[in-house]
Amino acid sequence: MRLVALGAGVALQRNQWKREGATDVTVREIIQTHPQPTSLDRAVLIQCVTECSDCADSCTSCADADLAEPDVEDLVRCIRLCLDCSDLCTTTGRIVTRQTAADVGVFRAAVEGCATGCRECGDECERHASHHEHCRLCAESCRRCEEACRAVLAALG
Amino acid sequence: MRLVALGAGVALQRNQWKREGATDVTVREIIQTHPQPTSLDRAVLIQCVTECSDCADSCTSCADADLAEPDVEDLVRCIRLCLDCSDLCTTTGRIVTRQTAADVGVFRAAVEGCATGCRECGDECERHASHHEHCRLCAESCRRCEEACRAVLAALG
Amino acid sequence: MRLVALGAGVALQRNQWKREGATDVTVREIIQTHPQPTSLDRAVLIQCVTECSDCADSCTSCADADLAEPDVEDLVRCIRLCLDCSDLCTTTGRIVTRQTAADVGVFRAAVEGCATGCRECGDECERHASHHEHCRLCAESCRRCEEACRAVLAALG
Amino acid sequence: MRLVALGAGVALQRNQWKREGATDVTVREIIQTHPQPTSLDRAVLIQCVTECSDCADSCTSCADADLAEPDVEDLVRCIRLCLDCSDLCTTTGRIVTRQTAADVGVFRAAVEGCATGCRECGDECERHASHHEHCRLCAESCRRCEEACRAVLAALG
Repeated sequence: MRLVALGAGVALQRNQWKREGATDVTVREIIQTHPQPTSLDRAVLIQCVTECSDCADSCTSCADADLAEPDVEDLVRCIRLCLDCSDLCTTTGRIVTRQTAADVGVFRAAVEGCATGCRECGDECERHASHHEHCRLCAESCRRCEEACRAVLAALG
Repeated sequence: MRLVALGAGVALQRNQWKREGATDVTVREIIQTHPQPTSLDRAVLIQCVTECSDCADSCTSCADADLAEPDVEDLVRCIRLCLDCSDLCTTTGRIVTRQTAADVGVFRAAVEGCATGCRECGDECERHASHHEHCRLCAESCRRCEEACRAVLAALG
Repeated sequence: MRLVALGAGVALQRNQWKREGATDVTVREIIQTHPQPTSLDRAVLIQCVTECSDCADSCTSCADADLAEPDVEDLVRCIRLCLDCSDLCTTTGRIVTRQTAADVGVFRAAVEGCATGCRECGDECERHASHHEHCRLCAESCRRCEEACRAVLAALG
Repeated sequence: MRLVALGAGVALQRNQWKREGATDVTVREIIQTHPQPTSLDRAVLIQCVTECSDCADSCTSCADADLAEPDVEDLVRCIRLCLDCSDLCTTTGRIVTRQTAADVGVFRAAVEGCATGCRECGDECERHASHHEHCRLCAESCRRCEEACRAVLAALG
């Protein structure tokens, strides 16, 4: 059975959620209760974790919106890069979250891969930003995540 | 090379992040720009997506903190359920995010699986809540996610 | 930079790999070295793990091939269900692999969700089997995985 | 409800599965039906996909077996690296599988990250290989996956 699609006419009160209270706060707190935290600046680490999570979700959602657009054929590269970026952000968010017995080589390689994925996906989404609002929003999320990854790499030295 | 662990004496300004501005807002907005949205109540859907994301991160972080505790042997079931719950929340968050050509049977089955994972993981974390703050926080995140899943199931009818 | 696409004229020696030696054998062996195995029939469990892994890969690959087809617009539902099914199989494969402190409720819910995902995805792929070989192959993989999940559910009683 | 653990006395007919027929063959075939394949050597690509899949499963299974060992405290780093490696292999396997509109920068970064994860996890598992058979097997799987990743990087030039 399929869920009914309502069509494009419906309900785009886009800013309805924008000013809501903080979310995704739990992982920030949990990270701070770790019994053996790493030496990495905690604020930088937490920023990276939350941006990875946001960007993973944004890319999943943008790929899905692309798929429902009438010009889906022009969005094939966008879909593909969003799928890759979502996978990279999910995995990197997990690795950065883990503080126990961290290996700096693995940590760095994961964050570098994620920064690359976010850069390319952000570039591609930006190409469609003027005609697809979801691409514009997703590009912003990719930029923020890339920046958070770069901050982690800078902190690693 | 390993990242240096600082030990338990360091920096637990636990509420430092608590009152920060909203995060993870991008996916909420992107979901609302979908060209062919499903008939499901948008607020219920978005709540489920953001709670899945938060709970996935919380469970990854709690399993990792458990692993660094001196009583790790008593936390084996907690680690295992947190790993399962994180995987279930990640997958379910993705499926609930996708609105294109949704299949209600798959949608329901994923959300039911996630609710079950959150319930069991929440129960287990609660058992350790009095002596491990990360377990207390993670249990709360599991409860909220289970509730958000139940709200989706109720909305599906 | 993009990888060059060779186009459809190239090299479809489709059966080249078919009779190769066994692969993915490591997880089978590792599962059998578990110090505290569950009471579940080991052969049934291992079959489910390997089919989940195969089906996750098949669905990722089929969604990707769909995306490059000239009739991509007719394959939107197939892409969407393949993405869901791949995520479900990845998560369920992990949960079924884990034998430590297993929770039968979580285990069952994950396997049920996976069976549902495989059934719907298999049905959809089958609709395109006559004109897309990747859909025919993916449908077969979904059927085998659904069957392996049902065998686990039967073994659970 | 928990699944009953049978204890270490049970049934380690370890080689029972070893010579079974080929598995995970579907993704190999599907990759070869892609309508717009990349210029990358297909055998190298398929080897990487199947080793990523095998290594992801091995690491999930090894982390889980570690968790049930009496000397779990000595296996904390092994568990952590297995979790990271499993996540990296899952994501990289997906990215390498996808041939549509591939971006060579993202592709390379993912494969490099995976090779690093496999190397470190393989080194750590090897440290425990003499007293834990699952670590020995998992180390082998990591080595094979690292090698397959290096072959992809060499083919990229």
